[in-house]
Amino acid sequence: MTITLTVFERSPDGGRGLARDTKVRWALEEAGQPYEVRLASFADLKAPEHLARNPFGQIPTLEDGDLVLFESGATILHIAETYGGIFPEDAGGRARAIMWMFAAANTVEPVILDREVAGFTEKNESWHEARQPGLKDRIRTRLNQLAAHLGDAEWLDGGFSAGDLMMVSVLQRLTSSGLLGEFPSLAAYVARGEARPAYQRAYADQHALNTR
Amino acid sequence: MTITLTVFERSPDGGRGLARDTKVRWALEEAGQPYEVRLASFADLKAPEHLARNPFGQIPTLEDGDLVLFESGATILHIAETYGGIFPEDAGGRARAIMWMFAAANTVEPVILDREVAGFTEKNESWHEARQPGLKDRIRTRLNQLAAHLGDAEWLDGGFSAGDLMMVSVLQRLTSSGLLGEFPSLAAYVARGEARPAYQRAYADQHALNTR
Repeated sequence: MTITLTVFERSPDGGRGLARDTKVRWALEEAGQPYEVRLASFADLKAPEHLARNPFGQIPTLEDGDLVLFESGATILHIAETYGGIFPEDAGGRARAIMWMFAAANTVEPVILDREVAGFTEKNESWHEARQPGLKDRIRTRLNQLAAHLGDAEWLDGGFSAGDLMMVSVLQRLTSSGLLGEFPSLAAYVARGEARPAYQRAYADQHALNTR
Repeated sequence: MTITLTVFERSPDGGRGLARDTKVRWALEEAGQPYEVRLASFADLKAPEHLARNPFGQIPTLEDGDLVLFESGATILHIAETYGGIFPEDAGGRARAIMWMFAAANTVEPVILDREVAGFTEKNESWHEARQPGLKDRIRTRLNQLAAHLGDAEWLDGGFSAGDLMMVSVLQRLTSSGLLGEFPSLAAYVARGEARPAYQRAYADQHALNTR
């Protein structure tokens, strides 16, 4: 069966790997699973054909036979369960990997995205600068807690899992902010993720597409 | 095996059911699974004993035998997989239920929480009022998309699932804002969730605890 991802025809990040298809590509590479891509312009994402795949009009979507999924977290979980590679064998380890996936999506990413969204939508507002310290401190609180948990371990819970894949992908959004540099153990954690051959392949493929 | 949830000794919402243990209680009630609660003060949540259960210092956590989980989404997924009640039988339906769980956690909740957090942290800032229209419009965008998907269906994808449980729980946070009232089909969807006997039991238990 062919797996198809819908991705940006031209990612707003210019191929820096921050569009959400990169993490799904990474999961597919970890699983050794080939896939095809369907390119979508911003107009395509608002068309009924795409809204039937994802009512929120976002990328990526995944089609795997009859199954159509959106939400990168759910897509990565499907890949991990169906094709392996990034899920522990035991039920407890698997439940904890899923826990870290939700922690990335619901506890760490929102504070990081808040700051990005403020940059997109409030850059010219009088209060933009005044809000920055508060936005950054909310991020630091989460990074402090995450760094305390990680300690000097390589990954969040034993071997590399889908939880690490999602957490690394979320933390990458901070690279240009300087905030990640305040937490050397987390910067090293992200670098370990990026050094994985599967990540390298995923990054190269999206980069080639976005710089063609 | 005894299931134990860590919950607020006294919820900041005074028992209105908006603390995140309510959705986990609801999932346990749907599964017909008894559980015990451990009460935690705000000081307890910062103690090493609790941070070992959840490094982010939040409630709820779930202990099920040797397994210790945080993140309400991961906890509900564990309950659904292990004890049944809110997962479709078929693999495709199950993957889509998980998709809606992530959509609630990562696409719908963040815009709703943004407005709440602004209320907590920026109430006295000069820009608080000026930011309200933008915060509300981001919520309306998501609610429009969700309402378009739901149409006149009862639940998001066939029968009631863990995806609906999480989405209804997230939308409940809007009840006092008036925003949900702008979308009658979503208000009716939330009311259908709240009418379920399992929800009623979960609500009653947390309400009794928080108003004792």
